[in-house]
Amino acid sequence: MIAVKGYAAQNAKTPLAPFSFERRTPGANDVLIDILYCGVCHSDIHQARDEWGGSIFPMVPGHEIVGRVAQVGSGVKNFKVGDLAGVGCLVDSCRTCPSCQQNLEQFCEVHSVGTYNSLEMDRKTPTYGGYSNKIVVDERFTLKVSDKLKLDEVAPLLCAGITTYSPLRHWKVGKGQKVAVVGLGGLGHMGVKFAAAFGAEVTVLSTSSAKEKDARRLGAHHFINTNNADEVKKARGRFDFILNTVSAQHDYNFLLNMAKLDGTMVLVGVPPEAVPVHAFSLIGGRKSLAGSLIGGLKETQEMLDFCAAHNITSDVEVIAIKDIESAYARMIKGDVRYRFVIDMATL
Amino acid sequence: MIAVKGYAAQNAKTPLAPFSFERRTPGANDVLIDILYCGVCHSDIHQARDEWGGSIFPMVPGHEIVGRVAQVGSGVKNFKVGDLAGVGCLVDSCRTCPSCQQNLEQFCEVHSVGTYNSLEMDRKTPTYGGYSNKIVVDERFTLKVSDKLKLDEVAPLLCAGITTYSPLRHWKVGKGQKVAVVGLGGLGHMGVKFAAAFGAEVTVLSTSSAKEKDARRLGAHHFINTNNADEVKKARGRFDFILNTVSAQHDYNFLLNMAKLDGTMVLVGVPPEAVPVHAFSLIGGRKSLAGSLIGGLKETQEMLDFCAAHNITSDVEVIAIKDIESAYARMIKGDVRYRFVIDMATL
Repeated sequence: MIAVKGYAAQNAKTPLAPFSFERRTPGANDVLIDILYCGVCHSDIHQARDEWGGSIFPMVPGHEIVGRVAQVGSGVKNFKVGDLAGVGCLVDSCRTCPSCQQNLEQFCEVHSVGTYNSLEMDRKTPTYGGYSNKIVVDERFTLKVSDKLKLDEVAPLLCAGITTYSPLRHWKVGKGQKVAVVGLGGLGHMGVKFAAAFGAEVTVLSTSSAKEKDARRLGAHHFINTNNADEVKKARGRFDFILNTVSAQHDYNFLLNMAKLDGTMVLVGVPPEAVPVHAFSLIGGRKSLAGSLIGGLKETQEMLDFCAAHNITSDVEVIAIKDIESAYARMIKGDVRYRFVIDMATL
Repeated sequence: MIAVKGYAAQNAKTPLAPFSFERRTPGANDVLIDILYCGVCHSDIHQARDEWGGSIFPMVPGHEIVGRVAQVGSGVKNFKVGDLAGVGCLVDSCRTCPSCQQNLEQFCEVHSVGTYNSLEMDRKTPTYGGYSNKIVVDERFTLKVSDKLKLDEVAPLLCAGITTYSPLRHWKVGKGQKVAVVGLGGLGHMGVKFAAAFGAEVTVLSTSSAKEKDARRLGAHHFINTNNADEVKKARGRFDFILNTVSAQHDYNFLLNMAKLDGTMVLVGVPPEAVPVHAFSLIGGRKSLAGSLIGGLKETQEMLDFCAAHNITSDVEVIAIKDIESAYARMIKGDVRYRFVIDMATL
């Protein structure tokens, strides 16, 4: 076994604190990664505080992991010691069901193994995430990371990046299309960068005019304060595609009204309660309300390669791991531009 | 002006009763149709009783109209006296906006003129529907009707038919796909016939096992009683496409759970209240919830031609117009198999 240091929540009520544990000795197909940076996702808070139910404790959060390969198993083909590597939200799946065969491991019909707060395929062994100094992952679930980009800024691509890249690709967003990104946070700011890179005309919808300057810097062409009734009225029927990154409770009908004929709004945020949808909001314009969940391994690699080719990274604030609870507190207030990343050298 | 006899609601509270009114003298592009049959749509009740608000009284309902051409204007090219003709939910639109140019007049960005309870393009002249003996319509909004099919059974195709045909075509439902039709009423029974004709494997979902026999007769391959928890559990992730025809209040999440990866549920019924949708119901499987509204004129003609070629019509109960209120009462109880059609000879 491999001795690992990390930070863990012992239960839903107490702050994260130092935690020593063990990971499996790398098998034939495994890669041992020395973790350099781990991004802090809002879902880390939900899970560490058991806000979605079913949390497994002790919990080492973190699924936006970049590091350097320290050891490889005898069967590993694509990684060698010293390579940069990334790990996202998944570390295993059944690999044989129709979803896995379509490279959509996130929708594995048998069991997709989350990087933390999950059980391995044996359904017994808990998984521990990236708020730690080492991780052991099958190379099939390990991603290549370019050395052209700043590593701290790459970490959030593993979740915030793929979560926004995947729906924009799946729904073929590009040139000639008007795209709205709702909410300018960890997900939204990546959505703006990708939609702009794909050639779309991008509008940020936000409740805070303070975000307009940043929205434009990140690549948005327009900004609408959704509290401004006049601006909202003018945007009626405007957008081909709406990427909705908001996880606070909010009104979908209001936003669907801004979609054009055959327009789609895709949810990547999960509000705490179900949101009432009027049938007329969809019927009047043959509109769609859809959802998207991270991305498969193949698409995640494609996204990382796209980022390397187009010099796209996340805007981050690097923190020491001892400051994780104050980072959580700031995230809950929306006070981060746009992703906290833990420097694992501080562990 | 043309003298017309019909049945009208004088206000939301009183029963429909005989009503005499006038229609415009046919202009150069108009067709005068002697109405033979008019289907009775559930939306006739909602509008006659002002349940959706904004009703225009007096109201002559009816937008499932078939009849025979009695007179044509000097510019009419496609109809001659004696031809069979149909009129559906629309009698005019701006004809020049992007929606109209795409043959999607039902989504006209300027104003689509409903066959009744609507105002003409002048925004002043109320429209009166098919519970009457004559109608005058621009030939562009008049449909060709084959003499191969029974006319009383054709009438409901003009609304119930196109409302179900259009989404099945738009979402490319066909061979190799598993399709669910939710609700077996006026819309649902047409959805079953079309989905089966397009080669899909069709399952009817209904709260009433009494409908199973009919479902199979209409072309369904399977039947699920949605009150049977075991059957519902087994159907998890089964359907590529769900055509939801239910206009009673019901749970969308429960049905979305039966859609497979990348599956779509399309609403053609409008429940009285907004329905709460859990983001996870869509995100877990990249599913879509969409809406569809009747169809444009071109597609409505295509549907009528398809029906003539494949011998598809509606299952109807023909009634005398004096019995319209008792027909409404039976429709509200779901007691009609599957569409009432008024024989206008009884007027």
